[in-house]
Amino acid sequence: MYTGDSSDREARTFAGRVENNGIDPIINARSIAVIGASNRVGSVGLAAFKNLLSAGYKGVLYPVHPREKSIQGVKAYPALEAIPDFVDLAVVIIGADQVPGIVQSAADRGIKGCIVISAGFKEIGGHGVVLENRLKQIAASTGIRIIGPNCLGIINTDPDIRMNASFARIMPKSGNIAFISQSGALCTSVLDYAAGRNIGFSKFISFGNKADINEIDFLRYLKEDPDTQLILMYLEDISSGHAFMEIGKEITYQAGKPILVVKSGRSTEGARAAASHTGSLAGSDATYDAIFYQSGIQRVEGINELFNYAEAFSKQPLPRGNRVAIVTNAGGPGIMATDAAVRHGLKLATLSEETRAKLKTHLPPTASLGNPVDVIGDATHERYEAAIRTVVEDDGVDGAIVILTPQAMTDILETAEILPRVAADVNKPILGSFMGMVDVSEGVEYLQSHGIPNYVFPEAAARSMAAMVRFGERLATRERRRVITRMPCDADGVARFFRVKLAANEKAYVSEAEAYDIFAAYHLPVPRRRMIRDASEIDDAVAAVGLPAVMKIVSPDIIHKSDAGGVKVNLSTPEAVRSAYDEIIANALRYKADARIDGVLMVEMAGKGVEVILGATRDPAFGPICMFGLGGIFVEVMKDVTFRLAPMWELSAENMIRQIKSFRILEGVRGNPPSDLDALKQCIMKLSQLAADHPEIREMDINPLIVYPEGGGCVVADGRIMLERPRKGAV
Amino acid sequence: MYTGDSSDREARTFAGRVENNGIDPIINARSIAVIGASNRVGSVGLAAFKNLLSAGYKGVLYPVHPREKSIQGVKAYPALEAIPDFVDLAVVIIGADQVPGIVQSAADRGIKGCIVISAGFKEIGGHGVVLENRLKQIAASTGIRIIGPNCLGIINTDPDIRMNASFARIMPKSGNIAFISQSGALCTSVLDYAAGRNIGFSKFISFGNKADINEIDFLRYLKEDPDTQLILMYLEDISSGHAFMEIGKEITYQAGKPILVVKSGRSTEGARAAASHTGSLAGSDATYDAIFYQSGIQRVEGINELFNYAEAFSKQPLPRGNRVAIVTNAGGPGIMATDAAVRHGLKLATLSEETRAKLKTHLPPTASLGNPVDVIGDATHERYEAAIRTVVEDDGVDGAIVILTPQAMTDILETAEILPRVAADVNKPILGSFMGMVDVSEGVEYLQSHGIPNYVFPEAAARSMAAMVRFGERLATRERRRVITRMPCDADGVARFFRVKLAANEKAYVSEAEAYDIFAAYHLPVPRRRMIRDASEIDDAVAAVGLPAVMKIVSPDIIHKSDAGGVKVNLSTPEAVRSAYDEIIANALRYKADARIDGVLMVEMAGKGVEVILGATRDPAFGPICMFGLGGIFVEVMKDVTFRLAPMWELSAENMIRQIKSFRILEGVRGNPPSDLDALKQCIMKLSQLAADHPEIREMDINPLIVYPEGGGCVVADGRIMLERPRKGAV
Repeated sequence: MYTGDSSDREARTFAGRVENNGIDPIINARSIAVIGASNRVGSVGLAAFKNLLSAGYKGVLYPVHPREKSIQGVKAYPALEAIPDFVDLAVVIIGADQVPGIVQSAADRGIKGCIVISAGFKEIGGHGVVLENRLKQIAASTGIRIIGPNCLGIINTDPDIRMNASFARIMPKSGNIAFISQSGALCTSVLDYAAGRNIGFSKFISFGNKADINEIDFLRYLKEDPDTQLILMYLEDISSGHAFMEIGKEITYQAGKPILVVKSGRSTEGARAAASHTGSLAGSDATYDAIFYQSGIQRVEGINELFNYAEAFSKQPLPRGNRVAIVTNAGGPGIMATDAAVRHGLKLATLSEETRAKLKTHLPPTASLGNPVDVIGDATHERYEAAIRTVVEDDGVDGAIVILTPQAMTDILETAEILPRVAADVNKPILGSFMGMVDVSEGVEYLQSHGIPNYVFPEAAARSMAAMVRFGERLATRERRRVITRMPCDADGVARFFRVKLAANEKAYVSEAEAYDIFAAYHLPVPRRRMIRDASEIDDAVAAVGLPAVMKIVSPDIIHKSDAGGVKVNLSTPEAVRSAYDEIIANALRYKADARIDGVLMVEMAGKGVEVILGATRDPAFGPICMFGLGGIFVEVMKDVTFRLAPMWELSAENMIRQIKSFRILEGVRGNPPSDLDALKQCIMKLSQLAADHPEIREMDINPLIVYPEGGGCVVADGRIMLERPRKGAV
Repeated sequence: MYTGDSSDREARTFAGRVENNGIDPIINARSIAVIGASNRVGSVGLAAFKNLLSAGYKGVLYPVHPREKSIQGVKAYPALEAIPDFVDLAVVIIGADQVPGIVQSAADRGIKGCIVISAGFKEIGGHGVVLENRLKQIAASTGIRIIGPNCLGIINTDPDIRMNASFARIMPKSGNIAFISQSGALCTSVLDYAAGRNIGFSKFISFGNKADINEIDFLRYLKEDPDTQLILMYLEDISSGHAFMEIGKEITYQAGKPILVVKSGRSTEGARAAASHTGSLAGSDATYDAIFYQSGIQRVEGINELFNYAEAFSKQPLPRGNRVAIVTNAGGPGIMATDAAVRHGLKLATLSEETRAKLKTHLPPTASLGNPVDVIGDATHERYEAAIRTVVEDDGVDGAIVILTPQAMTDILETAEILPRVAADVNKPILGSFMGMVDVSEGVEYLQSHGIPNYVFPEAAARSMAAMVRFGERLATRERRRVITRMPCDADGVARFFRVKLAANEKAYVSEAEAYDIFAAYHLPVPRRRMIRDASEIDDAVAAVGLPAVMKIVSPDIIHKSDAGGVKVNLSTPEAVRSAYDEIIANALRYKADARIDGVLMVEMAGKGVEVILGATRDPAFGPICMFGLGGIFVEVMKDVTFRLAPMWELSAENMIRQIKSFRILEGVRGNPPSDLDALKQCIMKLSQLAADHPEIREMDINPLIVYPEGGGCVVADGRIMLERPRKGAV
């Protein structure tokens, strides 16, 4: 094992090795064989080897080359087998065809990990797929762990390692941010961009085609990595939704490390045929949103925003609340910051009387003592310091944004020097917006290298502060994000029923009558009901169900019951029930002469209330996902719905309800009383559990669920379930 | 008159002088007296004078100083009166108290314009307001034109002028963009930022407190300015809504020059008491949105976005449509660009078979020939050029985004050189996204200085392309934005009625019965109705109105008619009408014993249809603004409404309808037929004209207007109008 200067590191590395399933020997490799290292100008093999050399790698490098005696002055070996010492890691930069053979040799030699930079695998299709499968087999059979292929490589900036095993042009400075990317090309731009913004990284990982090690493995590693306090990801897909969520939650809620992700491919999904509302509204993008949200991961729109937030998260403490103070030497930018703050959910802090009195002694009479605090264009750094210090010490202020415009009298560098000094004295975030590019550059550089994020314009500062507030608010709910309450149910009975239904068919519809029974098995509030198979059963049914009632045809051959004249509502006398029965049977036979008729379902008629829709659908990759929205136009036209993966916390069910745009309708508007939100939440959790328990459920709608005023509960007024035999390996 | 090298300029300047009401002698001044010019280190007077000198001013400078013999080597004069030559412009940088006296002297000397940089006026309140009013009086009485006070000054980069009459630190390079700002401090940051992005300006204007010349005057000037092709504005308020819209439309729709504006202060407005839905939903921000939209002006969120768009608009031609092609050397960024393009309303162009065939001959077999076109990481500039040229020549492509990530094999500068070359051959916009900061900088600089906008990340490129598409689409409708159709009406009759109503009172409510008459005078579709003042009139009323009908109390003392039991609906027999009459009168007197009762209004009962709300309110600064939305929850909970200032084009009324989120409901959903959109549009135009014709209308709601299926028209089912005596000078 590699012996660095720090015994801490040694202990940690060892623990990491055990826990992180083979990633540690790669990221903290003490010796590297570079297969494909080259002296040829313009080759990737030269670029990658030079990178390793020039980064100041602390371990031992063994270039492997069939003919060269040395690569860049380092003794070369004609083959892996010729290296006399033990090697941790092989970096592979040779033609794709040769890769499987080399990886096999590496495994045979006891090498623990490979970074396959070479391209020409899955991404080119055909023969490439075959080669990649071969790599997977080698990993599975030998236990060697593989990063890539088709990746940029890996960088570890740890001063005890300093490994740039990549063909990126730049070795980033060290920092507390890990970056994981599914796109290698993006990495080169990100490294370049981060260098320009003076942002450092702990680990920089391009994982390429993920033939073996995937983003979830890296997340598990980074959870334990003490050098990483913030994780940034660029993803195009996710290997396993539930495993991703599991590790995501552990990192965000338990370890308290924020994860920010750019997930691209929002618009590439095709429409898919769906038999339910839920199925037609749930796209893969909504599913990703749900996965990220439930994992405590913040999804951001682009790389620029990613790094705006990253600067704030990596350098400043989380605010305890959303009350922000703004200190500025110019009115206009102060207003712009205020607008952006309010737009993104921050509150302008109300400064205490004491704070205002103190400000008054420091500021000229024409300065504004309100928030934003305007120290005026001729402010010196002393005046700035007094103002900043006074506001951040106010108990009613959770964080501050300091704006500077370069005016004739402004001491830019001296003002920059204040911010880290004040920040060191208070445990509140301070973000800078020294506005401009050229004149302010000296000040900006000082801020960036002294732990204060800076934004060219104040809107980005306000937005980043808001992102920190959101994360802080979510951490505050972490206690409510531990246990998924298991609701009482007869899961076995339902499972048996589904097995029978799917015994002979790949797919099956569950009749409305059966759907009620299934919902009832999960203690969802179903109405009283009775199946009438013969007119003689009507009196019993009336006694059991009560009046008024609804009657509906039950036939596997009649899906659109209303179209067939198969529904009669508001039946308030036994006579009405009897004639409805006769009419429904007659209508059904007129509609389809040979329809198999199971009977007529008599259902207690639900009273009026707010109609909502609950549903669940099964994503082929991520399993069951639940939907909630208000009924009718709100779902169909406004698409005002929320999604969460099942199973879910109680808090998730609550948030599903509260996060629809039309939530106020459930709170009671236009003289209507507030709805029974607690009962509604219970229904969502029961439906979620039903979906999670039974992979046979392809799609399911409760439409409508009628929600009554507070204390009045809910009732399922119609429901449908579509079953499909689960495929092997389905989630 | 100043004689430059160019006789063109001379002619133009002369025309400008006539048309532009005194701004031209300031912006193109041939001689400047600088009052307050100073040799004192650190003074604004020194900074401003140095700026004028170092910018290479082509006219003559006359520093004025009571004691100094020269300022920075230039002969100084003890007073304005001592200058022997004719002077166009005075730049004033002295204590506020002395300013009015100096401006008066300047006017007396025949100086045409002043730039008052000095602060200490309206912005400090009290004595400052008095001083500023004094300036206004001098301008009004002498005809001298004043820019400021409390401004940064003005910069004209015209090579024949080169005037930096400001205390900004930087003289920008020349370009075709004019920047107008209400915040002086923001200007310093913007100049600094633009220098960093290599963006030039034609005119750079800080207008300060606008004691005399305001943003509208500058817009009038810039409309004619041949050096300005794009106008950027930072505004905190607008001096006159209708004048602003007028010149805005002339510049955008007629002159075809885009205007982009950042308007701050979105969140500072207080809620205001309002008696109508329209009044409570219309805030000043919604009004500004309407003003900008109707003027063809694009409102943007912040300075960063402003310059992202500005680069595209100022350097590239407008796309003819929204079909964009993306060329990239990396998959991930291509997907990110696609996502952003689709999110902002662009379409990924479908490449023709011919284009794909051509691409095939230029690209390696693993490249993607679809859109995005992926030229792969090892692309040379030759391969890039072939790909870019091929896609932009496709007739199905309206514009292109070229993405470059810095990879080992990439020729960054050579690739940059392609873009302007290709752009010169096709009249389609090409935007660059050379991603990164350091490595790509040489290429980025080349692009920026050769007319190709560049964006660090492709999202911003896609968003800027979308902004250009939107502007192009609006220009395409310019023919429909010329004439406001005058609807037939009895405006005089309504005016007489309002005069009577307001004869004795400052404010007045119009009864529902009277409101129907007013709507009828504007040919809005009102129901048949009859006022019943006595039970003996009931039979006549039934004959005139028909059945079924609605009866409503009419009393100036009963506003909430339903609460008072003053409304009866669905009356379908004469007997029902009679008993309703008696009940209503009895209820009203029970509700308020001394209520003055004008009678009971009998109204034809409207059939069912889609309920919408139309309204208008009078903004104290901008006059009448109209609102449209679907009735009930859509307005109250979802706040799904659109606003336009009255009067409006037919197209505006159409857009008001189409731009609500719930528009699909009017198109017909859930088996309902499409609504009569044409009749609805007519109603909006009539209401708009009613509001525009009568400044007495403070607020007005038609709630609901019932819209019937296509061909069925609409009917006003209830309405209220609140009057207020117009204040002097009200709009």
